[in-house]
Amino acid sequence: MSHARQFLEPGPVVLLTTRHAGNDNVMTLGWHQVLDFSPSVISCVVSRGCRSFDMLRASGQCVLNVPTSEMLDAVVRVDNCSGEEIDKFAAFGIEREEADDVDAPVLPQCHARLECRLRDDRAVERYNLFILEVTRIRARRSPKQPEFLHYAGDGVFMLSGKRVSRRKLFRPEMLGF
Amino acid sequence: MSHARQFLEPGPVVLLTTRHAGNDNVMTLGWHQVLDFSPSVISCVVSRGCRSFDMLRASGQCVLNVPTSEMLDAVVRVDNCSGEEIDKFAAFGIEREEADDVDAPVLPQCHARLECRLRDDRAVERYNLFILEVTRIRARRSPKQPEFLHYAGDGVFMLSGKRVSRRKLFRPEMLGF
Repeated sequence: MSHARQFLEPGPVVLLTTRHAGNDNVMTLGWHQVLDFSPSVISCVVSRGCRSFDMLRASGQCVLNVPTSEMLDAVVRVDNCSGEEIDKFAAFGIEREEADDVDAPVLPQCHARLECRLRDDRAVERYNLFILEVTRIRARRSPKQPEFLHYAGDGVFMLSGKRVSRRKLFRPEMLGF
Repeated sequence: MSHARQFLEPGPVVLLTTRHAGNDNVMTLGWHQVLDFSPSVISCVVSRGCRSFDMLRASGQCVLNVPTSEMLDAVVRVDNCSGEEIDKFAAFGIEREEADDVDAPVLPQCHARLECRLRDDRAVERYNLFILEVTRIRARRSPKQPEFLHYAGDGVFMLSGKRVSRRKLFRPEMLGF
């Protein structure tokens, strides 16, 4: 589970999926961070106006799906409409499957899928901040260096660029994911 | 201040600077997120073992300095030693200046410098999570697309890559920084 860091720490936009009372929803989420890696704890901000806010709070579970640049248009379209007006899965060609551990849809078109349970909702009232524990990760083996999306503001996305290693400058205990 | 999102939302590694009891310190920080943008509220995790943890808690102020790829070696070296053993500023050629609003050093070699005050320490005991409010931002005008650093785990950094606009797919009220 500590590998969650590998996918979330560089700051990619993710697709948050939830299920509650027979409804599935998906939202675009850029505000998340790693809080710990053993166990793997993640926090994320979900706006109070979003349908996903109520669904996550009520169900206590979700999936963080990490899309690559091929899904850019779907990511933006999901972000600019509401699940109350439209079936976002059908409208934007987003496939879904059942998760292993949680009752929420997983998006197989995404490179990585992190199943999460709500661990702590004490900061929800003040900051809309949900603290999640990752219970399962599934990721594709290839490509080795997927092009993830990072939101740079004002409608512009930054794609993951070149990778450079500085392993030799790290103390051995600081390496790993 | 809402422009803080522009620099932090894509997930760059930052250099956190603090001052307390006549000492300055700098640490490398990858675990942060935007919580709000008006006012600009940021959270970050500072490990309890770090000298910066005590300094930030005691002083209640800090600067988040956003380095570019030219500073990669300094960023890694700062992360692999302690301010108790070494003067990291002198050892790694890190220049410092006085901040405008807070009593902590600012790093002029960094592209952007966000001065912050500790707003809420209620999640510090449980998650080492400091909630900060940005009070001032200074950023260079060029380059327009700096190469920021994103930690991808295991000693490897991802650099900011190509930018692509999807402004046309956004609702107007969703644009801006």
